Amino acid sequence: MVNCDWCNLSEEDKQFQVYESVLWTVFLSDEQDYIGRCILVLKRHCGSMAELTEDEWEELRRLVCKVETCLKTVMGATLCNWSCLMNSFYKDSDPSPHLHIHVRPRYDKPVMLHGNIYIDSEFGHHYALHKSGSIPAEDKEEVFTRLKEWLN
Amino acid sequence: MVNCDWCNLSEEDKQFQVYESVLWTVFLSDEQDYIGRCILVLKRHCGSMAELTEDEWEELRRLVCKVETCLKTVMGATLCNWSCLMNSFYKDSDPSPHLHIHVRPRYDKPVMLHGNIYIDSEFGHHYALHKSGSIPAEDKEEVFTRLKEWLN
Repeated sequence: MVNCDWCNLSEEDKQFQVYESVLWTVFLSDEQDYIGRCILVLKRHCGSMAELTEDEWEELRRLVCKVETCLKTVMGATLCNWSCLMNSFYKDSDPSPHLHIHVRPRYDKPVMLHGNIYIDSEFGHHYALHKSGSIPAEDKEEVFTRLKEWLN
Repeated sequence: MVNCDWCNLSEEDKQFQVYESVLWTVFLSDEQDYIGRCILVLKRHCGSMAELTEDEWEELRRLVCKVETCLKTVMGATLCNWSCLMNSFYKDSDPSPHLHIHVRPRYDKPVMLHGNIYIDSEFGHHYALHKSGSIPAEDKEEVFTRLKEWLN
């Protein structure tokens, strides 16, 4: 769709793409409030879960398995929180949502990267909404490489 | 599973069941922070999205379409927020999660029931985590009846 940012991702936007299947793309999120957090983006412009085709739904199943297993294996996640919200699009007077799904890995133990410690302080509870999602570039690069290598 | 509350729902727990398919059950949530909020519960004891069988996944697709259309039709929802979290189970030292999915209808206009007005103050933003979910019994009964009649 011409005016949709998600249909027209730049090479810079795609910098943290960790995986691509036929109908979906997976990116490491800009927000790393839960280390390893990713976003699954449908390649087609589609506004809701209810409008997914049979093929898109079937491929999503394989992707959910793959990404969840990856986050458990390479990051040590205990479980994953999945959500499909799309709220931000509705700030617009003429909303045109583009389907995407958030996955936040949750951890019962701290994760160490280059001497930095990432603690899931809310483990066992809903993910925090206003936790800082900014992490050092070398840690982001490390997570990106681990995920990309495992997934491909 | 013997010790799982979700595998052993009492008749009282099932009081607000709005729909039942072969592999899933849908309940109106106790929490009505977003009016019409429901919960989809898998009938089988299963711990994560990644472990759903092909049949469970396929039936989930039909259910997502049905429930989303229902909430838009009978409640006037603008969109739905879907989430599969399972965090609470992990407070236990030996967690045994039972798969369920939350659906929160979101509204760009107030909903009126028996003279009570329900406003989605956070529309366009993430759902609130600590909004009161308690509503008058007659309003809950009205929502329950509308959903149940449309879904069955």
